[in-house]
Amino acid sequence: MKIGFIGLGVMGRPMAGHLQAGGHDLLIIQRSSPPPAELVSTGATVLETASVVARNADVIILMLPDTPDVEAVLFGPDGVAAGLSPGKTVIDMSSISPLSTKCFAAKIAALGCDYLDAPVSGGEVGARAASLTIMVGGDETAFAKVTPLLSLMGRSITRIGDAGAGQTAKVANQIIVALTIEAVAEGLLFASKAGADPALVREALLNGFAASRVLEVHGARMIERKFDPGFRVALHQKDLDLALSGARELGLALPNTATAQALFNACQAIGLGDCDHSAMVQALERLADHQVAPG
Amino acid sequence: MKIGFIGLGVMGRPMAGHLQAGGHDLLIIQRSSPPPAELVSTGATVLETASVVARNADVIILMLPDTPDVEAVLFGPDGVAAGLSPGKTVIDMSSISPLSTKCFAAKIAALGCDYLDAPVSGGEVGARAASLTIMVGGDETAFAKVTPLLSLMGRSITRIGDAGAGQTAKVANQIIVALTIEAVAEGLLFASKAGADPALVREALLNGFAASRVLEVHGARMIERKFDPGFRVALHQKDLDLALSGARELGLALPNTATAQALFNACQAIGLGDCDHSAMVQALERLADHQVAPG
Repeated sequence: MKIGFIGLGVMGRPMAGHLQAGGHDLLIIQRSSPPPAELVSTGATVLETASVVARNADVIILMLPDTPDVEAVLFGPDGVAAGLSPGKTVIDMSSISPLSTKCFAAKIAALGCDYLDAPVSGGEVGARAASLTIMVGGDETAFAKVTPLLSLMGRSITRIGDAGAGQTAKVANQIIVALTIEAVAEGLLFASKAGADPALVREALLNGFAASRVLEVHGARMIERKFDPGFRVALHQKDLDLALSGARELGLALPNTATAQALFNACQAIGLGDCDHSAMVQALERLADHQVAPG
Repeated sequence: MKIGFIGLGVMGRPMAGHLQAGGHDLLIIQRSSPPPAELVSTGATVLETASVVARNADVIILMLPDTPDVEAVLFGPDGVAAGLSPGKTVIDMSSISPLSTKCFAAKIAALGCDYLDAPVSGGEVGARAASLTIMVGGDETAFAKVTPLLSLMGRSITRIGDAGAGQTAKVANQIIVALTIEAVAEGLLFASKAGADPALVREALLNGFAASRVLEVHGARMIERKFDPGFRVALHQKDLDLALSGARELGLALPNTATAQALFNACQAIGLGDCDHSAMVQALERLADHQVAPG
C-alpha cells in the first residue's frame, strides 16, 4: 500500500519505519531539515508538499505536535485536503483536541474520504518497539480496513467510537496518568516527611490497591531523583489544556485535574518544563521544604 | 504461643481464626455481644478484661476502629498496659494515627515490652483469604520474633521502619488509593460526557501508563454502577483525616488529598457514606449533571 507519513519526529520516525518494514511504500515530504536517511535509504519517496503526498498515497498518516499543526497540514496551502480524491483514508495519530477532531473529520468526509483519529500512548519506547496502545475514533469499516497497518505500530488497538472518540480516550488517559502521578507524589512525600523510607513504602504498596504502573515507574523516579525525560512536563501541560478546555465546554468539574495542571505550571516556573512529568513531585516538595528521600 | 486478640470485627474474626488454625492458643474478651462461636468452639479462652488477657498472653493483638479505641484498650481502666509484664509484645493492627502510635509505643516500651504497629490493607476479602498486605513499624528483633504470626494472616509483610512507620505507610496507601479513585473518576467522567463509551476507554487504558488496580476494580464499579461496600466512604474519610491532620502537623501541602476528602464529605451529604469509596464519582457526577454511562 502507498502510505503518506507526515510528521517524522521522535515518534513518527520509528512508526514510519515499521510500516516500511511491513512492506509498504512510504511517501514523505521535504521540510526544512533533510528527510531521515534510514527511511530514504530503504526506498521512501520524498515529495514536495502534503498535497502531492495525498495525491499519490492511499492512506495519509499524520503525527504532529498539536491541533494547529494538524489543521495547517490538512487544510493549509498545499495541504492534504487539496490532494485528496474520494476513497482515500486520513489517519491522525497526533494527540489533539477531540472537538476540533470532529470538525476535521466532517470536512474530510465531505471530500469522500475516511478520517480516523488514532492517538497513541506508550511514548518513544513504545514507538520503537511497535508496542503502542492505539485508541481509535471513526467509522467501523474504515477502522477494519486499516487495522493491519495500525498493528504494525501498536500492540493494543481499540476502536472507542465515532470521530473524536480516540482523542477523547487519549485525554482521559492523560487525566488519569497526571492525577495518579500526583497521588503517588502526595503519598510518598507524606511518608518521607513523616520519617518513613519511601522506597520501602513503595515496595509494600505495590502489593495492594495502591498498585499502578505510575507507582512502579514514576514512584521509582521520584525516589531515585531521575527526572530525565521520559514524557516531558510541557507535553503533559498541553494535554491537560485539552482536558480543562474540554471540561469548560462540556460543563464538567475536574478539580484534581486543575490542581495537577497548576503543579505542572509551577514546574515550568522553576525550570522543570523539559523534565519527565514525575518532576511534578518537586512542586509539592518546594511547598513542604522537604524532598522525597530515604527516611 | 498464647495470643490475646482484642477487636473481633469483620477483619479481626477471620484474622484470629487463622492464628488459631495455625496452632496458637487464643485469648479473647467478653464484651457486650457474645464472643464468636466459631472461635470458642475451637478452644478460644474467654476472659473478663483486656488486662487479664495481657496478663495471660505472650502476644497481644489489637484490631480496633480508631485511635481513641486503641488508646482506651491499651491505657484505660482494666486495659492492656495494666496486665503487661516485661518481655511481652503488643501488636496494633488497627489503622490509626502515626503520631499517637509513636506515643503509645514509647509508653509500652517503658513497661519493658515490645510494641509494633502493623496496619493492613486488603479488606475483608484479604482478611478471610489470609492474603493481607501488612506494613510494620517497630524494633527489628521484635518484628523478626512475630513474623511467623503475621505470616498466618498476610501474604506481603514489610517492616517499613521504627515505631509509627507502619501507620505512616498505611496513610500513604490511603492517600494514593483515594487520589487514584479520583483520577479514574475524572478521566471516565470526561470520556463519558464527551460521548465515548467509558467501558471501552477503561479497557484500552488498562494497557498503558494509566493502568492501576483502581482503574481495574473501581473503574468497573463506576461503569457498572455497583457501589455496595467494599471499603466504605466513611472509613476512607477517617483515613484522610489522619492524612490531613498529619500534613497540618508536618507542614505539608496535599492539595489533591484535600479535594478528595471534600468529595467524600459531599458523598456523606448525599447519603453515600456507607457506599464503596468508588462512589466518589457520584459527587463529581452531581456537579456535571451527568453519569458515567455507556456512550
